Amino acid sequence: MSNPTAAMLVIGDEILSGRTRDANMHHLSGQLTQYGIDLKEVRVVSDDRPAIIAAVQTLSHSYDQVFTSGGIGPTHDDITADCIAAAFGAQIDVRADARAILQAHYNEQQLELNEARLRMARIPDVAVLIDNPISKAPGFSLGNVHVMAGVPAIFQAMVASILPTLTGGKPLISKSYRVERGEGDIAAPLSALADSYPTLSIGSYPFQKNGLFGANVVMRGTDIDILNQAMIRLKAEFPA
Amino acid sequence: MSNPTAAMLVIGDEILSGRTRDANMHHLSGQLTQYGIDLKEVRVVSDDRPAIIAAVQTLSHSYDQVFTSGGIGPTHDDITADCIAAAFGAQIDVRADARAILQAHYNEQQLELNEARLRMARIPDVAVLIDNPISKAPGFSLGNVHVMAGVPAIFQAMVASILPTLTGGKPLISKSYRVERGEGDIAAPLSALADSYPTLSIGSYPFQKNGLFGANVVMRGTDIDILNQAMIRLKAEFPA
Repeated sequence: MSNPTAAMLVIGDEILSGRTRDANMHHLSGQLTQYGIDLKEVRVVSDDRPAIIAAVQTLSHSYDQVFTSGGIGPTHDDITADCIAAAFGAQIDVRADARAILQAHYNEQQLELNEARLRMARIPDVAVLIDNPISKAPGFSLGNVHVMAGVPAIFQAMVASILPTLTGGKPLISKSYRVERGEGDIAAPLSALADSYPTLSIGSYPFQKNGLFGANVVMRGTDIDILNQAMIRLKAEFPA
Repeated sequence: MSNPTAAMLVIGDEILSGRTRDANMHHLSGQLTQYGIDLKEVRVVSDDRPAIIAAVQTLSHSYDQVFTSGGIGPTHDDITADCIAAAFGAQIDVRADARAILQAHYNEQQLELNEARLRMARIPDVAVLIDNPISKAPGFSLGNVHVMAGVPAIFQAMVASILPTLTGGKPLISKSYRVERGEGDIAAPLSALADSYPTLSIGSYPFQKNGLFGANVVMRGTDIDILNQAMIRLKAEFPA
């Protein structure tokens, strides 16, 4: 049986303008690989209602799980929650459970739960809250879409709390081998190896360092015995 | 007149598996912003023929320019060039001009231009080559799609050579101001500001450092006078 599939949707003008370097994609991809969920696609869209809604609908139809990051804060450009609700035709308003979490947090901080902060309690009716241990404002899961904050520390905490609730598959195991030959010399034997082991994903990642050409050959699969067999053949082709 | 729009397509299992952290998106987004081309969407897909073809077709229809990175090397997993040709219904084969570039390069290196390396001369009939000053194997432009290598140094060199051939718009100017108040306190005045200046994109990026809550407010637009006006109002709302 093949692993569950996933997509990620990164929401934010600041990534597309080059102001901010996204860090969440790299974190999520590593976590999903360990967890046996195959990340198949990532999209980055701007803070634009039609763009977010269209992407959510397409991705949630095409993949088993969808993870979003960004756009769930208190300011006018934080429109993710409302867009997710619209994508699913769900009702959204300030929800009592989310409001209680925020009220407790701001009481403790002696800050007012004003109208802007209250926007962070806007949660679709049938969504399940995702805990935010850092700044309290929750994320949520609606259907197969998991809506999380863009701030990396909060995103990571939310991923950690959501992953154990999902059905994972076989973790993808990865083995790599450094070959100090140009990729053009490696290509033919590697292609033959890929044909012999159709269950493995075999990639070649070239490098050039201090005038030395080479490639890191990476094999990925879920069966350690097959991976080991293929690695023995690779090393025989290209002895260190 | 609004600026030209663009999308980026990153091709590679190694990004989706978390093995490699993509660096090209951040580079391209910064370059396009300076050049007055609005990057509206980024997609990352795996080394999968149908996924690449579908993404190229969608993006090239939806945006003025499309930039791809990855999958144009000599190994079996380098399928980008053939997928781009298929997406446009174009013929592709080893092309004489690309072959001559590679032949000269490998002659100089005293390496054989073998079958694998020759794959890098597979270029669609009507495409225009993009110079690769680093490892010579060219990228190409076909229609509004610009196909470039995934290795960051080569990608950057190719972007530098392709951008001056495109029609840019007004560079997006960005001004930011650090407010040491919680985002919830900033939100209402910021929303009013956004309503007053509809041609500006105003974003708020929260931080939390050493127990201090705050946000960097970023305003982007193409008219420096309007930006300056809005910044004066923002600073009046939140004096340093």
